[in-house]
Amino acid sequence: MEIITSANNDKIKYARKLTADSSLRRESGRFVIEGARLCADAASCGVIIERAFVTGRAFETYKSYVDAVTAVCGEVYEIDEAVAAKLSDTGNPQGVFCVCVKKDGASVPLDPLGKYLALENVQDPSNAGAICRTAEALGLSGLVVCGGCDIYSPKVLRSAMGSSLRLDIIEEPDIVSFIARAKEAGMLTLAAVPDSAAEDIRNISFDGGCVCCIGNEGNGLTESAKQACDRAVTVPMKGKAESLNAAAAAAITAWELVR
Amino acid sequence: MEIITSANNDKIKYARKLTADSSLRRESGRFVIEGARLCADAASCGVIIERAFVTGRAFETYKSYVDAVTAVCGEVYEIDEAVAAKLSDTGNPQGVFCVCVKKDGASVPLDPLGKYLALENVQDPSNAGAICRTAEALGLSGLVVCGGCDIYSPKVLRSAMGSSLRLDIIEEPDIVSFIARAKEAGMLTLAAVPDSAAEDIRNISFDGGCVCCIGNEGNGLTESAKQACDRAVTVPMKGKAESLNAAAAAAITAWELVR
Repeated sequence: MEIITSANNDKIKYARKLTADSSLRRESGRFVIEGARLCADAASCGVIIERAFVTGRAFETYKSYVDAVTAVCGEVYEIDEAVAAKLSDTGNPQGVFCVCVKKDGASVPLDPLGKYLALENVQDPSNAGAICRTAEALGLSGLVVCGGCDIYSPKVLRSAMGSSLRLDIIEEPDIVSFIARAKEAGMLTLAAVPDSAAEDIRNISFDGGCVCCIGNEGNGLTESAKQACDRAVTVPMKGKAESLNAAAAAAITAWELVR
Repeated sequence: MEIITSANNDKIKYARKLTADSSLRRESGRFVIEGARLCADAASCGVIIERAFVTGRAFETYKSYVDAVTAVCGEVYEIDEAVAAKLSDTGNPQGVFCVCVKKDGASVPLDPLGKYLALENVQDPSNAGAICRTAEALGLSGLVVCGGCDIYSPKVLRSAMGSSLRLDIIEEPDIVSFIARAKEAGMLTLAAVPDSAAEDIRNISFDGGCVCCIGNEGNGLTESAKQACDRAVTVPMKGKAESLNAAAAAAITAWELVR
């Protein structure tokens, strides 16, 4: 096995650039995951792992996880600790990294009978990751991501704890186009708004396919997204807090979709 | 008005220490809040503001917020930008800081007919703050905090966006003692667990007073907390994600408590 000891190695430089640069992730259709457990999760759920970098220490410490990776990835390199530190997005790397192939988010099929959350311009990586995790845990059909933070950034991947690799994620730059597509498929489209005049989410029947749109943390959904949806719904609030945060609103909304 | 231009001023040193040191916050019963909006929120909801520090720029930029603070606080100091930078817990301070008096969290009354979440050892400040915000938004009677991160730390206060100042927060080091107290008051006590053998939370009747206990992010509730509760409940999960994160579990649980 080739051993890489220089952070200037071309493959390492490319992986570092993928970690840092969302436009390269988009253009190349590649992303990097870090951590023994997350890399093993990727291997076990069929993510295409193009290349793996593993420290000598990690080969021993995380043997079963690393074995799961090397079983599906033909191109494995040993790296030293200094290279791992350069590759890592965290302060304390485990020494396991994979360059993976993104699913084509624009061609993921939409299940007309499924339940989806659609995120418009959600900016905070922790929120986006938590919403992925919630969507998977509650058994949503998938997540639609329209703008906002890159779902394949290191922070979102970490916060999602592998759920974003297992969940169907539809990437669609324009939420209004997506809403039109969902309507054409016969799905109910809802705008989640912090507005007491909107319909109480408890009164909605979620029998058929449904997409519920969640807006940006600071500004909520855009007017055009709200206009495009069939109906506006709200989680009734009683306190003085101006609104639930995006991840909490998404959790309650997802729960009602599948309740 | 006295102008403070040295970060070595005793009042500034004390405020910095309060910001950094949870044991001083506990001993002194004081905490520091930062930001024009948050300080005005504290003033408007009756928090005792002992002392305020405001930059010359903030007096102008955030006039209405600062006026709300100075209306209830007799001890206001002007500080310069360098002192504000030292006081601040953020990279880009607005220049408004208040030293506030904590409510005595051990003597906050428990409403026997109320709905409460009790957090056991929740460690992440963003989770704790988000749970405060959710609890207030959904109209819970209060939040019980047993160990974990200090609810009066700068990060939790920021993430809670003022809700922790308005919400009844009961601080109780030992959750088992608290559960006993709630039972004596005739309340239903529930342990929220990621365990499909536990009762489905949708099947619980929340007519009377109730406390639902949420555990630590990594380890969940301790065995002794689970044993102390009347029943164990769960949010049924369908995906492969091992569990909802603590803030999402708390949001769905709080929603069911008041639904």
